[in-house]
Amino acid sequence: MPSASVFETYFRCFRRCTSERFSVYEVLYRCPHCRGLLEVHHARPPLKACRSGAAWKALLDARNGTHRKPYGSGVWRYREWIMPDLATRNIVSFYEGNTNVFEADRFGRRIGLSDLWIKTCGNSHTGSFKDLGMTVLVSVVKQIMAQGHTNVQAVACASSGDTSASLAAYAAAADIPAIIFLPRGKTSRAQLIQPIANGAHVVALDTDFDGCMRIVRALTEDQSIYLANSMNSLRVEGQKTVGMEILQQFAWEVPDWIIVPSGNLGNVSAVYQGFRLLLDLDVIPRMPRLVAAQAERANPLFRSYQRRFAALEPLDAQETSASAIQIGNPVSFDKAVAAIQGSQGLVASVSENQLAHAAALSDSTGFYACPHTGVALGALMQLAADQTIAPDDRVVVLSTAHGLKFTQFKVDYHAQSLPQVESRLANPPTELPPSLADVRDAVQRILNRRARAAA
Amino acid sequence: MPSASVFETYFRCFRRCTSERFSVYEVLYRCPHCRGLLEVHHARPPLKACRSGAAWKALLDARNGTHRKPYGSGVWRYREWIMPDLATRNIVSFYEGNTNVFEADRFGRRIGLSDLWIKTCGNSHTGSFKDLGMTVLVSVVKQIMAQGHTNVQAVACASSGDTSASLAAYAAAADIPAIIFLPRGKTSRAQLIQPIANGAHVVALDTDFDGCMRIVRALTEDQSIYLANSMNSLRVEGQKTVGMEILQQFAWEVPDWIIVPSGNLGNVSAVYQGFRLLLDLDVIPRMPRLVAAQAERANPLFRSYQRRFAALEPLDAQETSASAIQIGNPVSFDKAVAAIQGSQGLVASVSENQLAHAAALSDSTGFYACPHTGVALGALMQLAADQTIAPDDRVVVLSTAHGLKFTQFKVDYHAQSLPQVESRLANPPTELPPSLADVRDAVQRILNRRARAAA
Repeated sequence: MPSASVFETYFRCFRRCTSERFSVYEVLYRCPHCRGLLEVHHARPPLKACRSGAAWKALLDARNGTHRKPYGSGVWRYREWIMPDLATRNIVSFYEGNTNVFEADRFGRRIGLSDLWIKTCGNSHTGSFKDLGMTVLVSVVKQIMAQGHTNVQAVACASSGDTSASLAAYAAAADIPAIIFLPRGKTSRAQLIQPIANGAHVVALDTDFDGCMRIVRALTEDQSIYLANSMNSLRVEGQKTVGMEILQQFAWEVPDWIIVPSGNLGNVSAVYQGFRLLLDLDVIPRMPRLVAAQAERANPLFRSYQRRFAALEPLDAQETSASAIQIGNPVSFDKAVAAIQGSQGLVASVSENQLAHAAALSDSTGFYACPHTGVALGALMQLAADQTIAPDDRVVVLSTAHGLKFTQFKVDYHAQSLPQVESRLANPPTELPPSLADVRDAVQRILNRRARAAA
Repeated sequence: MPSASVFETYFRCFRRCTSERFSVYEVLYRCPHCRGLLEVHHARPPLKACRSGAAWKALLDARNGTHRKPYGSGVWRYREWIMPDLATRNIVSFYEGNTNVFEADRFGRRIGLSDLWIKTCGNSHTGSFKDLGMTVLVSVVKQIMAQGHTNVQAVACASSGDTSASLAAYAAAADIPAIIFLPRGKTSRAQLIQPIANGAHVVALDTDFDGCMRIVRALTEDQSIYLANSMNSLRVEGQKTVGMEILQQFAWEVPDWIIVPSGNLGNVSAVYQGFRLLLDLDVIPRMPRLVAAQAERANPLFRSYQRRFAALEPLDAQETSASAIQIGNPVSFDKAVAAIQGSQGLVASVSENQLAHAAALSDSTGFYACPHTGVALGALMQLAADQTIAPDDRVVVLSTAHGLKFTQFKVDYHAQSLPQVESRLANPPTELPPSLADVRDAVQRILNRRARAAA
């Protein structure tokens, strides 16, 4: 690796209200001038001067499959494009990434597609794609604490889902205190067991989720506690590697479509950022088209998209099985609009019935989809049906969490108890006496039924 | 890859009651002469003639990190040592394996070890190591069905746990009917939701688990349905790759110890088989020492070990949190004895309190252990405390399933409601009013407490 000082990586205002650069090792979440979003920017000239596109590919392919620190990680393999001057000793990594692209050929045939893949981001240490971003955030915090210029003593967030699970795990490995805020009585211990097990300090407040956010914002204002919230643009840096890794897995051949479950809109923005960099560095010749897939009951981006990306109108998100994307006022709206426009992409909206059916259909062909992945698969089915996606297009669907985190969703589907969902693929057990003759008959009926269905 | 016909891979009687060879594509679960266990044997001379140890390593390292079919799989990367004449088109794979070795340095420091790793086999498609064996079994069945010499129409097993989940997923991907038998009323839908979601035919019988086994054995006798039970030695062929992959991850440097949670004893036998092959082919110069870790409440191998491997005395296994290894009459006892003796290994026995504490302690350092992994970690803590394992020995612990499959175990631990367990690391939430001052005070107390603990 060339000396880190060759590169220029810094925070800048996403809106460019100023040309000022801020250190990524500052405790900073918003532009200090306009209070808008920040983004981590990697100046292109030093990166282009360092290597040609072909040479970058060769470097990355040489690191692929290694277990050498930190390149065995699917995030830190791309370290020059992430945090080039982060010291290796401060990297807190579970060798995240490196997730398989599931060859969804049986599911593809069912919906008329011949080149369909599912990127299994949930097949990870804490069971969701959040690990990709959290390794970067916690590593940067570790470096900040090691440098000793600041007063940072802990990390915090307000979340009862994947974010708190991932933050707690990385903080535990780094031996940094993690404090998780949540509304008292509104989450079960089962929802919170990952951060509890990973030794985070869980604080239950007598308020609602917004009340928790207010407290955690105020608490972290003096910069003694680092806020791992969803507008933190360090996490984007890790999340963007998922698109890079997909490209590398396909030997740098650009897929036609990437479909991303979308709520707070950080993920689709991250994927786009990654592709922009690949394009600028001549690693890929063109951009895949991005599809932001939203649940119909929480679809402010889709509503804006239908009106040619009119300004965001925040809405009250309705309850959806895809709980992690039940967001009416998405933080990264502006970034997502840029991502869809810049990739000639589109936005889709999927009903509860569609998302549950898509998840169940993919499960019946060997996958195990979380409800958010169901939203992306439901969008895929719409776009295949109306031939926006052509039968031989290469499509990659981002699966954001492991289905094992959503047992109740699947139990409810197969018990036919999900609201607004017709469980067409419900698969109840057959109950029988312990008689070989009865079992033989039942099995024969099962096999005959399948033979008829196949004919 | 050299022509498959170079190699000689066949079933043989594990006891060698006969020198007869049987095809691995025959529907055969036991030695037809003595009814004992079979094993898949790979004749050494053709493998040794094909490549030197160094050349095998170079071949495998060249495949590492590829996504080329089927070598992107951590099982099929070793295909010449698994099923050399299985046609690529019949391989049913989720690119299983390729799991990270978690660098457990914080946990290691807590128990006085400096070179400790956890192989995260549960970080997989269905959440357990069973995928490693099931890809081989289902692929062989697919080839058997494609050859058309037999009448096989479906696969079946009796299991309410990881085996049925894995069998159902691979069968779904292969479009082969899977039939899962279980005792009616003794398992919840949540336990069974994986095979149900993956479209398996779940048959609930009015009997106990042994009754299910009797029915499934009788049903599969005419060879129309392939039995994926635990004595099926095809699964061993896939499971043995976990040890090979560990070696490859450490650049073929042999660890001092490998610790394996042990119930039915197929897994420790499989790991040993893999190492034997590596040793015979001059890929490694020596064998790591194997530790079979049993739950005290289901420890027939440990009891035999204490009496210099006296004959197995089956026992009634008591209920344990490590439910998948709650087995009193292990199928692979003979193979496991050979594995422990052949590796100068040992057997340990771990109480409920020890396994729960070990899991919780590792969790507090960033891991997320299932109870079976807790048994292995508990054994590790015993062996580190009595200095059987030296402080700088390299130790790899096999983690057999993802902690996400055992939410209730963790909830119960932190609610202090596990029987026979003192939850020393219980980490209950702090409840507070939504007042910034109160929160500040609480956070300060948390940080002070940690500072004192660290001092």
